Amino acid sequence: MNFDFKRDCRGIISVIGASDIDNNTEKKTIEIGRLLAKNGYAVSCGGLSGVMEAVCKGDKEENGLTIGIIPHTEKTIANKYVDIVIPCPFSQARNIVVVLTGDACIAISGKAGTLSEICFAWIYQRPIVALMGVGGWSSEIANHKLDNRRNDLIFGVESPQEAVSKIIELLESSSNSKDLSFTNKF
Amino acid sequence: MNFDFKRDCRGIISVIGASDIDNNTEKKTIEIGRLLAKNGYAVSCGGLSGVMEAVCKGDKEENGLTIGIIPHTEKTIANKYVDIVIPCPFSQARNIVVVLTGDACIAISGKAGTLSEICFAWIYQRPIVALMGVGGWSSEIANHKLDNRRNDLIFGVESPQEAVSKIIELLESSSNSKDLSFTNKF
Amino acid sequence: MNFDFKRDCRGIISVIGASDIDNNTEKKTIEIGRLLAKNGYAVSCGGLSGVMEAVCKGDKEENGLTIGIIPHTEKTIANKYVDIVIPCPFSQARNIVVVLTGDACIAISGKAGTLSEICFAWIYQRPIVALMGVGGWSSEIANHKLDNRRNDLIFGVESPQEAVSKIIELLESSSNSKDLSFTNKF
Amino acid sequence: MNFDFKRDCRGIISVIGASDIDNNTEKKTIEIGRLLAKNGYAVSCGGLSGVMEAVCKGDKEENGLTIGIIPHTEKTIANKYVDIVIPCPFSQARNIVVVLTGDACIAISGKAGTLSEICFAWIYQRPIVALMGVGGWSSEIANHKLDNRRNDLIFGVESPQEAVSKIIELLESSSNSKDLSFTNKF
Repeated sequence: MNFDFKRDCRGIISVIGASDIDNNTEKKTIEIGRLLAKNGYAVSCGGLSGVMEAVCKGDKEENGLTIGIIPHTEKTIANKYVDIVIPCPFSQARNIVVVLTGDACIAISGKAGTLSEICFAWIYQRPIVALMGVGGWSSEIANHKLDNRRNDLIFGVESPQEAVSKIIELLESSSNSKDLSFTNKF
Repeated sequence: MNFDFKRDCRGIISVIGASDIDNNTEKKTIEIGRLLAKNGYAVSCGGLSGVMEAVCKGDKEENGLTIGIIPHTEKTIANKYVDIVIPCPFSQARNIVVVLTGDACIAISGKAGTLSEICFAWIYQRPIVALMGVGGWSSEIANHKLDNRRNDLIFGVESPQEAVSKIIELLESSSNSKDLSFTNKF
Repeated sequence: MNFDFKRDCRGIISVIGASDIDNNTEKKTIEIGRLLAKNGYAVSCGGLSGVMEAVCKGDKEENGLTIGIIPHTEKTIANKYVDIVIPCPFSQARNIVVVLTGDACIAISGKAGTLSEICFAWIYQRPIVALMGVGGWSSEIANHKLDNRRNDLIFGVESPQEAVSKIIELLESSSNSKDLSFTNKF
Repeated sequence: MNFDFKRDCRGIISVIGASDIDNNTEKKTIEIGRLLAKNGYAVSCGGLSGVMEAVCKGDKEENGLTIGIIPHTEKTIANKYVDIVIPCPFSQARNIVVVLTGDACIAISGKAGTLSEICFAWIYQRPIVALMGVGGWSSEIANHKLDNRRNDLIFGVESPQEAVSKIIELLESSSNSKDLSFTNKF
């Protein structure tokens, strides 16, 4: 193939959020997908509908690479914009794999399942950006901490552009610094 | 054995919370363990320290039965008050098993891991009671909903006595009603 | 409760095997359940039908304690002889939890799912006894090793009586010895 | 990117086997990796050493795409030939994800962990090819069935060339036929 992942991809961003979303949230999520692809990032998500489908759609419009980690054994259940389907038939435990596959995480609205993913991104020291103004947990939890194990925040952002520029900034500063002490506590 | 689980146990309550707690929270958690045992309920927890150890300690003081679902392969890592050790070496995914093993859930303080357990208890339709006045997520989330899939709340309670009487009330009303539509959405 | 698990139970034996079995295998499995309970051992199994149901049935006939680790979120799917239901909604990954919950393992017939459980019992250093003369993988693999990480065998036995006396012998010798070096390799 | 997974990749083959291998097995595994890439297939594996490293090395020599599903939370533990690291911190349960990510499976030698993966490939209806003459479970189980749920075999092959041509043949015939009834039994 005329493609080398490590050469051609700057990293993987996990994008998490609700499985049913309104038009406004869908548009913003598609735009985030487009911007991630344009900037050379692959997308990791849960592979199903709503935010998961919209971010893959946007990403593919700009010829990106999409990874869908589905909670089923059959690949056909993934949305049509997923390139690489990872079947992880462990119900909600698949959320952990979605988050860990990304080097950083963007949250867009979301219900209790998304909140569990934000928890795991927090626990596993992934930088997190939360889109505000779209309802759901990303709006609620923006600019908060989940507990005292980290010094940073879940950074609230107001637009797709800000979401992507902030996540890139966080990724680049975290890869340059050594003080991001990884603690894998239960 | 002179014991029949289904005859002698009214159910299992999962008790979730921080792995390190202050004296005040420990005392309250021990009391919750005692009251659960006195009322005929077994305890399910994560099997390690803090809230997990305190609730098992209280439960055993009243000759209860304790189940510890640990994220390791070796049983010896469980705290000494755990009767039945269930090794579930799936890191944070073991939180799902802790919550599902209980018929209802009591949250006591807690960090991001506990919040993920509250999410799963919510998703899997377990009645939830949250102790207030002990800091952490149980205090924060008390009397809120996580999303609109359920009509009830995470019920805030102010004392061990209220925690146990409320959880029993919730369990008995849920087993009598048919309107608790179980939805296993991802 | 007039019951203390650590005082009244000598340990937990996981019993694994096919979910559909013939009459002869069912009778032998019930007998193994009876003998385990009589000897003070609780049973861990997958909680569903076939060997899982028969061993729980036998165990309850002698007032034992049964633990069913089911690959579903809803407890009602467990067979009626299961006392403690542990929902582990991780499809075949629940096999790992079944095996680790036991201090030792008895295999009775079985298809590919049972063979995966024998693999995990082997990897996680659980003593294993395999009933011969009942078809399936327990008959096939009896008196073999799976690889060179252990010095012992999967011990073939010819009757329920021999299965239970052998597993007790193995458990008692392993708890007395220190040379069972636990290696958790992937 | 100048790459579209669905356009440029014919599918994903999971390659499973021992984490420590001899020179002969390593050479053959590298060759299998090379041939898979040349034929347009991406590789899924456990991401660590031995067969997992050799197949990724071969695949990258021919500019293929490699996916490593590791049983850890930190991506750095993957071997250096893995492109896309999927952290699946669920100990042996990650084996299930390795196998399901492939559309078909090639087994090369292997111990008990590999045998568990063969079980899952069998249960989840993935076509399986087993390399003979390299010791371990692939040699042992070649040309056998694990149980009666499938009509086909674990096909034994004698060379890297035969492994890859057989797996392609199996994949193409399975995608053309409708009689591969998927049964997800526990």
